Amino acid sequence: MSNSLEELMAGLQILGCDTPMDESDVVIFGAPFDSTTSFRPGTRFASQAMRRDSAYLELYSPYQDKNLENCRVHDAGDLVLPFGNAADTLSIIEEATTTIIEEGRMPVMLGGEHLVTLGTIRALAKRYPDLHIIHFDAHTDLRETFFGEALSHATVIRKCWDLLGDDRIHSFGIRSGIKEEFVWAKDHMELRPFDLEGVADMPAKLKGAPVYLTLDLDVLDPAAMPGTGTPEPGGVTFKELLAALHSLEGLNIVGFDINELNPLVDDSGVSTAAACKLLRELLLLFAPQHP
Amino acid sequence: MSNSLEELMAGLQILGCDTPMDESDVVIFGAPFDSTTSFRPGTRFASQAMRRDSAYLELYSPYQDKNLENCRVHDAGDLVLPFGNAADTLSIIEEATTTIIEEGRMPVMLGGEHLVTLGTIRALAKRYPDLHIIHFDAHTDLRETFFGEALSHATVIRKCWDLLGDDRIHSFGIRSGIKEEFVWAKDHMELRPFDLEGVADMPAKLKGAPVYLTLDLDVLDPAAMPGTGTPEPGGVTFKELLAALHSLEGLNIVGFDINELNPLVDDSGVSTAAACKLLRELLLLFAPQHP
Amino acid sequence: MSNSLEELMAGLQILGCDTPMDESDVVIFGAPFDSTTSFRPGTRFASQAMRRDSAYLELYSPYQDKNLENCRVHDAGDLVLPFGNAADTLSIIEEATTTIIEEGRMPVMLGGEHLVTLGTIRALAKRYPDLHIIHFDAHTDLRETFFGEALSHATVIRKCWDLLGDDRIHSFGIRSGIKEEFVWAKDHMELRPFDLEGVADMPAKLKGAPVYLTLDLDVLDPAAMPGTGTPEPGGVTFKELLAALHSLEGLNIVGFDINELNPLVDDSGVSTAAACKLLRELLLLFAPQHP
Amino acid sequence: MSNSLEELMAGLQILGCDTPMDESDVVIFGAPFDSTTSFRPGTRFASQAMRRDSAYLELYSPYQDKNLENCRVHDAGDLVLPFGNAADTLSIIEEATTTIIEEGRMPVMLGGEHLVTLGTIRALAKRYPDLHIIHFDAHTDLRETFFGEALSHATVIRKCWDLLGDDRIHSFGIRSGIKEEFVWAKDHMELRPFDLEGVADMPAKLKGAPVYLTLDLDVLDPAAMPGTGTPEPGGVTFKELLAALHSLEGLNIVGFDINELNPLVDDSGVSTAAACKLLRELLLLFAPQHP
Amino acid sequence: MSNSLEELMAGLQILGCDTPMDESDVVIFGAPFDSTTSFRPGTRFASQAMRRDSAYLELYSPYQDKNLENCRVHDAGDLVLPFGNAADTLSIIEEATTTIIEEGRMPVMLGGEHLVTLGTIRALAKRYPDLHIIHFDAHTDLRETFFGEALSHATVIRKCWDLLGDDRIHSFGIRSGIKEEFVWAKDHMELRPFDLEGVADMPAKLKGAPVYLTLDLDVLDPAAMPGTGTPEPGGVTFKELLAALHSLEGLNIVGFDINELNPLVDDSGVSTAAACKLLRELLLLFAPQHP
Amino acid sequence: MSNSLEELMAGLQILGCDTPMDESDVVIFGAPFDSTTSFRPGTRFASQAMRRDSAYLELYSPYQDKNLENCRVHDAGDLVLPFGNAADTLSIIEEATTTIIEEGRMPVMLGGEHLVTLGTIRALAKRYPDLHIIHFDAHTDLRETFFGEALSHATVIRKCWDLLGDDRIHSFGIRSGIKEEFVWAKDHMELRPFDLEGVADMPAKLKGAPVYLTLDLDVLDPAAMPGTGTPEPGGVTFKELLAALHSLEGLNIVGFDINELNPLVDDSGVSTAAACKLLRELLLLFAPQHP
Repeated sequence: MSNSLEELMAGLQILGCDTPMDESDVVIFGAPFDSTTSFRPGTRFASQAMRRDSAYLELYSPYQDKNLENCRVHDAGDLVLPFGNAADTLSIIEEATTTIIEEGRMPVMLGGEHLVTLGTIRALAKRYPDLHIIHFDAHTDLRETFFGEALSHATVIRKCWDLLGDDRIHSFGIRSGIKEEFVWAKDHMELRPFDLEGVADMPAKLKGAPVYLTLDLDVLDPAAMPGTGTPEPGGVTFKELLAALHSLEGLNIVGFDINELNPLVDDSGVSTAAACKLLRELLLLFAPQHP
Repeated sequence: MSNSLEELMAGLQILGCDTPMDESDVVIFGAPFDSTTSFRPGTRFASQAMRRDSAYLELYSPYQDKNLENCRVHDAGDLVLPFGNAADTLSIIEEATTTIIEEGRMPVMLGGEHLVTLGTIRALAKRYPDLHIIHFDAHTDLRETFFGEALSHATVIRKCWDLLGDDRIHSFGIRSGIKEEFVWAKDHMELRPFDLEGVADMPAKLKGAPVYLTLDLDVLDPAAMPGTGTPEPGGVTFKELLAALHSLEGLNIVGFDINELNPLVDDSGVSTAAACKLLRELLLLFAPQHP
Repeated sequence: MSNSLEELMAGLQILGCDTPMDESDVVIFGAPFDSTTSFRPGTRFASQAMRRDSAYLELYSPYQDKNLENCRVHDAGDLVLPFGNAADTLSIIEEATTTIIEEGRMPVMLGGEHLVTLGTIRALAKRYPDLHIIHFDAHTDLRETFFGEALSHATVIRKCWDLLGDDRIHSFGIRSGIKEEFVWAKDHMELRPFDLEGVADMPAKLKGAPVYLTLDLDVLDPAAMPGTGTPEPGGVTFKELLAALHSLEGLNIVGFDINELNPLVDDSGVSTAAACKLLRELLLLFAPQHP
Repeated sequence: MSNSLEELMAGLQILGCDTPMDESDVVIFGAPFDSTTSFRPGTRFASQAMRRDSAYLELYSPYQDKNLENCRVHDAGDLVLPFGNAADTLSIIEEATTTIIEEGRMPVMLGGEHLVTLGTIRALAKRYPDLHIIHFDAHTDLRETFFGEALSHATVIRKCWDLLGDDRIHSFGIRSGIKEEFVWAKDHMELRPFDLEGVADMPAKLKGAPVYLTLDLDVLDPAAMPGTGTPEPGGVTFKELLAALHSLEGLNIVGFDINELNPLVDDSGVSTAAACKLLRELLLLFAPQHP
Repeated sequence: MSNSLEELMAGLQILGCDTPMDESDVVIFGAPFDSTTSFRPGTRFASQAMRRDSAYLELYSPYQDKNLENCRVHDAGDLVLPFGNAADTLSIIEEATTTIIEEGRMPVMLGGEHLVTLGTIRALAKRYPDLHIIHFDAHTDLRETFFGEALSHATVIRKCWDLLGDDRIHSFGIRSGIKEEFVWAKDHMELRPFDLEGVADMPAKLKGAPVYLTLDLDVLDPAAMPGTGTPEPGGVTFKELLAALHSLEGLNIVGFDINELNPLVDDSGVSTAAACKLLRELLLLFAPQHP
Repeated sequence: MSNSLEELMAGLQILGCDTPMDESDVVIFGAPFDSTTSFRPGTRFASQAMRRDSAYLELYSPYQDKNLENCRVHDAGDLVLPFGNAADTLSIIEEATTTIIEEGRMPVMLGGEHLVTLGTIRALAKRYPDLHIIHFDAHTDLRETFFGEALSHATVIRKCWDLLGDDRIHSFGIRSGIKEEFVWAKDHMELRPFDLEGVADMPAKLKGAPVYLTLDLDVLDPAAMPGTGTPEPGGVTFKELLAALHSLEGLNIVGFDINELNPLVDDSGVSTAAACKLLRELLLLFAPQHP
């Protein structure tokens, strides 16, 4: 009887990311919060679903000819967040992010609703006063308040602007919002509606600057991403999004998140599969390779 | 062409409850809030689902030989509630309840998570200082705080006790909680675990006193009520619950609610059907008949 | 290469009922019609689902210590029925039933909505003027018309009464209807509400008389039968129904049907499994054994 | 306590269309009928689902830079229709349509199966003898009878031709039918198979003529519209359909319908979301703006 | 910034069972194998689903007035098992079990299909030649081969008998099998059909002997456990099973398993909730308490 | 009463393929095996689902202007295969295929997981030593072993190469695998990644040679084919695949299969609809027409 029990066991980390924290370049954590969701909640279950289903995705990308086994990524698990309390939730996310970046690692957050991005940005904006945000989304998320609440999935990008100021936010794929948001955006940020035109120009435009990437999965057409809280038809295809992300190679990415996956409303699992594959491609793009 | 358009149209009210507000004895309203739900959210969609599926339930009860057409009930629709803000939500519910009882009508609330009951109790406790609560539930809901939050589905009955004091709350069917809750309950209220024994004694015990009934549908076994946020096996059957409710005839009910139906997790629709039938039976028990 | 292709193939008949028509005692056929369903249609798919899932049910009954392999049953497949045309549908069912009984075989029909029973009864009433019906159901189905239509799932038992007259229909488990139906029933038939009391008396009461059994599966509680068009909580358990059916042994059954299974609303498949098991038990009770 | 109950309540109308009938330019009504559906019924629930889920769609269109708040649209609710009776159903729809157009308002119908279009066309063809129909669909719908029935979802466009005659019907996206239909169409109408080529020519071709638009949602590829009774792979994308509809600007539209949404077979809700968004875009295209 | 990242994170173990292996009395492991399942596979996902959903179950049992926090249980994760290879799978399970019992800990296995039990029994039978098995199931599982295969979910109890011999196996709740199995059982083991009569006699009968408990969840009625591969109507209620398990207190249990949960066919989650609650109750019954 | 029962009945064959075996050019059979599936099993139910849903697809193709009624195709039903035993399963498939081709008919297999292709290839490779394979797939399927098993859905194309040798396999649409597979493929076969470029060259390249076509449906994007075991985002659209298949006209196809449809994970049915339509188009392309 030579094998110890441990050797017989499957790992629980996402995409096999079992590098110990101390040796890691990148730290992944889940932020299971969806209390301000207005339509169908359930994004709180996204990181669990991705961890489970990622076991069936190859670690090798034929697109980039790179392998996740050559990256040093630590999956830290999911934060414990208080349902119904957005303020405390953001503080906890900020604290977790700060802990990660203090040790020189790149934070990768799996939402949760889009509001969680504000927690990460608070930590990063302190460290990188010149931070830019590349934002993929179907929705503007630029309201000052939503049903009276300042902290909401519908206000999150506006709240990021409060921290960063004009000309720092670059939004793509936007196809839903109120008129006031579209008008406001013209004076304060780059908002590219409907498709992903302009994404490929980012590396040249932002050369050297620290960039945070926030990927609201509903930028994808609901055909490719049915599992999201507020499906908005008319989005980009998976291939279009993948090509856009690949075109970002060379940017100085200091963190990113993938949010708004709601596995509860997609029994087929294709939405979770898409989220996992996008995570793999982003890690291979921006995590150092150790061949 | 003799018919006007209106005569060709189906009504939108629950169980055909289209008595105008001014002529009604009872006012039904939905409270679509589920932000503090810890497991599977979705109770926000309960009142909509009940309104839709109630169209296929008879208005006549062969159990009571009574007909809803002889009751004067107004379905007021759903409250607009701010997701993620429990405090404001409770204030709005309290205000709505107050408006209803000020005009001498009985409030009937369709949750939403169980926390919404606190809003109704706040209004009723002011008017009826001697209010009792009959509480059907799988869970104690007696914590002082839950993950640091005072306002939560897991604290709601304790918060009602804060308003009413000892010996006013009568809980039945309880089969889940932490030890501290069960111990605390012994000194402050009536808590009957596991089944509905003792329910039939209520009319004699509480004779004349104003009583609010809060029905957390997870008191039912998940076989009968799969569509709920936190299913807790080992509950009572539909027939047992129905008999227990019928045994309450004669109580001075001043309001009631039905909560924790989550239609998102029951595609079969049997949970919504059960909720609608219980609503019908309760209305027939406690709303005045106008034959 | 000795095996012919045919020997490698699985059969398509329900419960392995592959006795050729000419050698059979019993003929099963599907009647996939649901056009008058008022709530959730889908019973048209019942016989297909039962055929598929019956492959996983044993042919031996430990309850009766009998084996379907000892019965001579032919599964004839599904009738082609015109959707949206109840009158023609009933004529086709009547014709099929007549063809079966003319050759001395017992017809067994798999609905479809309950209206299909009228087609079978038309054929059988001609042959057996003294026919009785034993009727399991949640609903009275005794209206004269339903939304202006005489041919409807809600009128079917009343239309059978038109053919058979007073004291021939014995209904059990009824728990839904309008008051007029319950009142009417008192003068014209046996209607036992809520449970299955009285079923066991049938063999003594109806000794010798030809009896048709129509089993609307919604007599079962939705916990046991979520897959039905109009779930009505408060029904009997599977064990209770099974015992009631077993108590019918010795009756002169000349045909039966199982109806109102809607597999579209029960992804778990437990409703279809229940329907298949009830079919097996009824065949073993009423088809001749050839040991 | 200043707010009245009504002010606290959410509206029930689709897309916030709460203009009173008397002040409205456009009247929306549901036609919940699906009795002739041959595969998976459920379109009867479409208008309810659209009403519920439309609450989460913005009223502003960034595509057209217009806002529904500037339109005067009345949602009249759903017609009461007799299941299983196609003839009476069409009469009721015709009557409702006539009532609407007699007062100079534009009728907008939410199906239901495609047959319901015949009811609307009967009313409109009387008023506009020179009526044209623009028809988006996967299926020809040109049979004279279907399983012996003249009134069917598979015959509806042929029955419209009976009323209007040659060269009045313009079908796009067609990719399924029997050979006889395709052959027949060549002599009697414009039938453009597989895609939406030719749609953009309609405003020039039909300049001034009264046009009815009937949108069978299965013209969309099932990837974009899984929730339909008879999915037919190989359809157009949502973006392609949206562009085609936008190209119709300037037509003299006198009514339109959206049909064949079956929410029962799409738990993800993306089909309902697509239907709502198409409704918004069509209303913004063809309802007068009152800025 | 005082908290380390780890302190902010939620645990991944089932029911909070995070005692380190070295300090544990009990070791839980998953055996995600379902290759011989004949109907609906999916039990391979059971342990993952239980781990995820157990987070919402209280650790305290009001039935036993005991708390899991007082038990020392280690959740070791899931075994890596080769799909399609039953022989190798059983060897790995045997090896894992041996490793656990060699260090004096109690193995608790979460299936997987029922065949996995044979792996555990192989290890335990070597150590405890006088081992008894208490077996809850709807199915006999006593075939010598099934479709030609000796290693199958339908043969597992017979294969255990090969190792243990006559009068060691005690089966309860059995209601499905072929006649030969029921006949064979009479001479070789205790087989109690249909219900749980006789369970409460076990502690007296087996006093002192080492006992393994194997709980096939389909012993429950499908109303309580829709999420299983081969639902067999007519089973026991959750309350009946719970009472039977509680009556086993005092037995010398040396290991147990819970198997045949198929979360893929129960979107409502009630089956997984039942499995988790039964696991908690069994742990509280048979793991040492360290108050 | 003129009609015999048989004339009233619907056929059970897929796409109306009821030509008797002896008169047929093509024989379709199901191979319901999925024991080596690593993620979500369920492809065993594919042929049943296709048979059921194909009843709602037209037999006429407007793409090819051909009609299945002019083809002589026999649907032989489903093979009986031993779950959990890949070796025996392949032998049975090989035997069935041999039986079919010995009589000069074309075999068409409906999987099942992709491994089943190896059974067909074994039979065909004996008869056609110069056999080529055209392979549509998301995955390479080129491993030598997978989790230690040689016979697996992940090794099937490599095992075919063992039989056929270099330059005989032409794979299209591949977007997932391990690096070693992509490297190996360069020396031994044609592997075209990501899209379907090169398919249209096949008729010229392979002119005259016998060709087997194996269509793993996950070559389609999950938007078009959510119902598959291992969804891999980034695939081709249905239109692209259809065009590619049409471009194969003129090839000497000696057999084909369609595999990896998992209807259990697609409640919408669009995946099954796509599989049926592709089957129709392939039959019309490669079965002789008898006008």
